[in-house]
Amino acid sequence: MKIKKLAIIGVGLIGGSFALALREKGLVETVIGCGRNQKNLDTAIELGIIDEYFFSIKDAVKDADLIFLATPVSQSKAIFQQLKGHTKAGAVITDGGSTKCNIIDAAIEVFGELPDFIVPGHPVAGTENSGAAAAFPSLYLQHKVILTPHEHSDKQALQWVESLWTAIGAKVVTMTAEHHDFIMGATSHLPHALAFSLVNMLANINDNKEVFEYVAGGFKDFTRIASSDPEMWRDICVANKPSLLLHLKMYQGELSSLIDILENDQQQQLQQLFTRAKKARDKLLLENK
Amino acid sequence: MKIKKLAIIGVGLIGGSFALALREKGLVETVIGCGRNQKNLDTAIELGIIDEYFFSIKDAVKDADLIFLATPVSQSKAIFQQLKGHTKAGAVITDGGSTKCNIIDAAIEVFGELPDFIVPGHPVAGTENSGAAAAFPSLYLQHKVILTPHEHSDKQALQWVESLWTAIGAKVVTMTAEHHDFIMGATSHLPHALAFSLVNMLANINDNKEVFEYVAGGFKDFTRIASSDPEMWRDICVANKPSLLLHLKMYQGELSSLIDILENDQQQQLQQLFTRAKKARDKLLLENK
Repeated sequence: MKIKKLAIIGVGLIGGSFALALREKGLVETVIGCGRNQKNLDTAIELGIIDEYFFSIKDAVKDADLIFLATPVSQSKAIFQQLKGHTKAGAVITDGGSTKCNIIDAAIEVFGELPDFIVPGHPVAGTENSGAAAAFPSLYLQHKVILTPHEHSDKQALQWVESLWTAIGAKVVTMTAEHHDFIMGATSHLPHALAFSLVNMLANINDNKEVFEYVAGGFKDFTRIASSDPEMWRDICVANKPSLLLHLKMYQGELSSLIDILENDQQQQLQQLFTRAKKARDKLLLENK
Repeated sequence: MKIKKLAIIGVGLIGGSFALALREKGLVETVIGCGRNQKNLDTAIELGIIDEYFFSIKDAVKDADLIFLATPVSQSKAIFQQLKGHTKAGAVITDGGSTKCNIIDAAIEVFGELPDFIVPGHPVAGTENSGAAAAFPSLYLQHKVILTPHEHSDKQALQWVESLWTAIGAKVVTMTAEHHDFIMGATSHLPHALAFSLVNMLANINDNKEVFEYVAGGFKDFTRIASSDPEMWRDICVANKPSLLLHLKMYQGELSSLIDILENDQQQQLQQLFTRAKKARDKLLLENK
């Protein structure tokens, strides 16, 4: 199970925490980092996250047994192009991206077909901080990690990646990439798009300064995710475009119903809608405690 | 400035905290409570919030110098009907409701015209708890209180209410009822409607149990307000229907733009939208610290 050489492409919160957790459990011998920001890579060495680093992907993945992509999801194709033909026989590639169909599409474009040594994954964990300095070994403890193997996936590769996540305390679930993207589109990408849109709308209202002056705690909670990194979220929305569009349109339908209910003064339906929502959310909190 | 007799109609978090804060500052001699729930009123006596209580509004407001309505906004009209003709000369009425045009409309309906002794108000404060037991004297400390006097408002009555709020630590702002309802529709009522709608939509998706299983912290923050009291929010949405409908339709337009941007792969516009939102929210947090 132990990894002789692990290559982390993108040594930030996600990639760095993965390396630190594996280190803590004695599950990796050497960790190679790869990135474009030298200061960040130096920090990663100082913090003991990686042993050495390369700026070139080709050099970083050479001799690696496991390659972990922790870069923005829009870069998957370019990374596959750079590592193609430079990985050693038997090397396994996995990732920590928030969208899964797009990485599979990128692999098919680059390799012609989906290679059996790629195990797409998504650890459902994170903080608002980024960079190697933000990494910590317990990030994945008790968190779900969704693996989306395909029909051609190598069974041993899948089992290996699964056992590594389990060893560092994560709860592994497997599902299809399509189902993953559907669920994340609904519960993560849609809320982010809604929050960005609300703040944007209010900022555009002429007297916006005054509008923001009277916001209460509820507004701040509701819009917290609108303070997320715009570039990262642009990438995620583009990468999961079909699912996000589906859910945005479904949500527009939901708002149209609400407008109808209000316009027709259907107070009972309004209360039913709010009650159903409150019950669902309270139940969710109870179960996720 | 001191109140000889204060009548609190609805002795919950809002009304009870107002009484406790005035008590603490020695600004009130006697507090009369009025409500329908005897257990809650007994609690209010035990906690020293009120001195005595009545179930009938007519009895509660008799001899009161200041009457504070802290009941659901849908009950304003019924309360005006019950107190009409039973208040003493010179008595001032104010309230703590989340919507302001509807209380003015209710007063006009009942009194024929807007009485000069009514000073509509809205303390922008609250917690997720309710009932007399949830009241505490510092609830309004450093919080904004919006008063929405009208052209016929008695100047002295307005000044009195303003000085009482100021004395208990609140920051008083005055504006028109229409402007208040516009702002609250955008920053409070719209986000609540959006959060209820999102949770409701996800609960309606067939495999909702599984959908909710993968939600992360961002979703919980975003939907916190969907755990609010459905009856209270039904009332607020109905009471502020024009403003809420305006903002819901504006928001639908915002979502339509976002859908267009996504469908046309306008990545630059998408990032601009997200960036503008993030900047506006980060600025807001900085200013509201």
